[in-house]
Amino acid sequence: MKSAIKELEEKGKAAKAASRKLAFLSTEVKNKALLNIAEALITKKDEILAANKIDYEEAKASGMSEAMLDRLMLSPSRLEGIAQDTRTVAALPAPVGEVFEMRTLPNGLQISKRRVPLGVIGAIYESRPNVTIDISSLCLKSGNAVILRGGKEAINSNAALAKVAQEACDQAGVPQGAIQLIESTERALVNHMLKMKGIIDLMIPRGGAGLIKLVSENAAMPVLSGGIGVCHTYVDKNADLNKAVAIAYNAKVQRPTVCNALDCILVHNQIAQAYLPSIAKEWAKAGVEMHCDEQALTILKPVPSLKLVPATDEDWGKEYLSLKAAIKVVDSLDEALEHIEKYGSGHSEAIVTEDHSAATRFLNEVDAACVYANASTRFTDGSQFGLGAEIGISTQKFHARGPMALKELTSYKWIIQGTGQVRP
Amino acid sequence: MKSAIKELEEKGKAAKAASRKLAFLSTEVKNKALLNIAEALITKKDEILAANKIDYEEAKASGMSEAMLDRLMLSPSRLEGIAQDTRTVAALPAPVGEVFEMRTLPNGLQISKRRVPLGVIGAIYESRPNVTIDISSLCLKSGNAVILRGGKEAINSNAALAKVAQEACDQAGVPQGAIQLIESTERALVNHMLKMKGIIDLMIPRGGAGLIKLVSENAAMPVLSGGIGVCHTYVDKNADLNKAVAIAYNAKVQRPTVCNALDCILVHNQIAQAYLPSIAKEWAKAGVEMHCDEQALTILKPVPSLKLVPATDEDWGKEYLSLKAAIKVVDSLDEALEHIEKYGSGHSEAIVTEDHSAATRFLNEVDAACVYANASTRFTDGSQFGLGAEIGISTQKFHARGPMALKELTSYKWIIQGTGQVRP
Repeated sequence: MKSAIKELEEKGKAAKAASRKLAFLSTEVKNKALLNIAEALITKKDEILAANKIDYEEAKASGMSEAMLDRLMLSPSRLEGIAQDTRTVAALPAPVGEVFEMRTLPNGLQISKRRVPLGVIGAIYESRPNVTIDISSLCLKSGNAVILRGGKEAINSNAALAKVAQEACDQAGVPQGAIQLIESTERALVNHMLKMKGIIDLMIPRGGAGLIKLVSENAAMPVLSGGIGVCHTYVDKNADLNKAVAIAYNAKVQRPTVCNALDCILVHNQIAQAYLPSIAKEWAKAGVEMHCDEQALTILKPVPSLKLVPATDEDWGKEYLSLKAAIKVVDSLDEALEHIEKYGSGHSEAIVTEDHSAATRFLNEVDAACVYANASTRFTDGSQFGLGAEIGISTQKFHARGPMALKELTSYKWIIQGTGQVRP
Repeated sequence: MKSAIKELEEKGKAAKAASRKLAFLSTEVKNKALLNIAEALITKKDEILAANKIDYEEAKASGMSEAMLDRLMLSPSRLEGIAQDTRTVAALPAPVGEVFEMRTLPNGLQISKRRVPLGVIGAIYESRPNVTIDISSLCLKSGNAVILRGGKEAINSNAALAKVAQEACDQAGVPQGAIQLIESTERALVNHMLKMKGIIDLMIPRGGAGLIKLVSENAAMPVLSGGIGVCHTYVDKNADLNKAVAIAYNAKVQRPTVCNALDCILVHNQIAQAYLPSIAKEWAKAGVEMHCDEQALTILKPVPSLKLVPATDEDWGKEYLSLKAAIKVVDSLDEALEHIEKYGSGHSEAIVTEDHSAATRFLNEVDAACVYANASTRFTDGSQFGLGAEIGISTQKFHARGPMALKELTSYKWIIQGTGQVRP
């Protein structure tokens, strides 16, 4: 354990030293390194896949589930996918160096903010080895050094991928130490890493709720992580029924396993009779199980071939991540707003209405990262919003809210240029 | 203690409820409330001063130091000053409601970010009762509810001031509960408050290093606080000597007790012989004690009437907050950059030079909230930077860096307006 901590601290120091140089490394070199990584993922695929095979066999022998094994496995086509993502990051605009809020003060001082990297980013993640390259690319593009701590079960894959990335960076002229992988798999190292304030400027956990909670509660430094999404769509009494069906169908069915998928529809009682059978029939074709409050149940019972379940208290505020949806009939926009305030997770919330005042109230009053009028919550996504890469979707209000990308891995500094000014 | 915790939790709930309404309260009402507060501070000065007198007498009887008593004391002119600050906040542009990064996506979705309040702000502060009004005004203007927890020694003053502010808000139509004062003085309440994540969105500690450390290390929610300032000014070999004297004099002498005052000058050896005697003579007139490294000592010893002290290791990286300065002769810009990296606190750092390349390197490479070329570090200040009010100067890189004002008390939400779009 002592030697593992020593290794971690040495890698921390090396990352810190590299970060000083990365802060003003040209975008040209960074992009060259990214393209090198993409290329090396293909040319060195044999050694990467051989390392991955060791992890896979060991995990299989130890009884890992099929789903987990699938996440662990790399293949030529998966490596091509990772390479393509890396090329995409290379093509994005550089986040650092941007100068904003520039102005000249009455005393002649020229003052501005310049976007700069955060410094050193710590990443703790679980079995998917692609995160090794994914996070490394985002950190490199944003001028940050990174200390990677992947899962034990993927250690050989991660080591092979990190080596490929490090060599590709070296060849492009990136300062040594920019990408560090912790090779020790001792669990206690994570706790030590979370206390390395002064070395690590930001911690990014990627994985299940348990990991995110552990990191959020114990890190001495700031943490950037995605939040869970309990997403509502409110169908107002003045909704266009066709739009409301298309939107709720898309939000639930297009990809039910993700955080921005619909969990609950709230339907105004004046439109429930007309609306609910239409959406329910569509949902039923896709296999959606509907957890209905009493009123919804009364309306939907006569409709044939639906999977109906009476809703219990546990259905409100639940993130299903599957083909299930809760349905509640409300008496007013106010009741919908109250329900969302009580049960939403501050992720993505939508109203469907042709009534401008209702839409305005909803957009003003709902306190969530993304609020929609007449569109599917499935759009909450870095790529869909035009940000390119995505780190996650924040439901916090501090530093970053909603989809987070390269800019959220930066800070700024104030630059003040004078000609001898002193304060009176 | 139980009843105190109950009081705190009830006030927390009331603040949370108020924050929902404050989020879309008009600027007109907020400004009216601020002007009401300013007026009431004058018309109700007798009751405020009577309450303050109780605190003052008790503190005096308990043996409080003169300096602390002075911080605790209110007077008609001090109340006028607080009222004037409140009017200034009223006159500032509203931070919330600003719409930015608006654009239309190829699919017709109109997407933008809208600046919104953070929600509920917790403020923990020490003896100065003016903070009660100061923080309340900033929170009100930025649309946040606030839970105030002042020092025990100022409890009567704070209660009187909070009452004035609450009544003034009521009259203007601000939602009840926007300003909450915790009246119990039990110390353990602070720890409870720091765990109220979900109710309090941001914690602001105002006071000494001990309080800031307690809050930063124990708060479950984000913390916004000022950092210490160990500020260097590097006099390059190509510095204009007159500018270098004026800047270093101003940075050290104009107000030595604050965080942006100069702590250490680094002087290039090629200019040290010409520069050091000039600045030392000026500093000596103001009573500055100079802690010199060996080379600086050799140069300055022949100069009469200087307060010279040989520097020890403790002088590097020290925030003096008094008329003391460290002086070190360096061989190069690189040595200056290394010294600042090692000993700076990431607050404000300056170079004096006529050499454009040296200035550019310094501004690029120094990792601090504010980096200066040819100006005094004393300018690091919200008012000087044109931000109006100031909460503090952050030396963190997350969320806010450098002078923090109203905008730093806000977050944003994404607003997405569609016409029925679904994700393909």
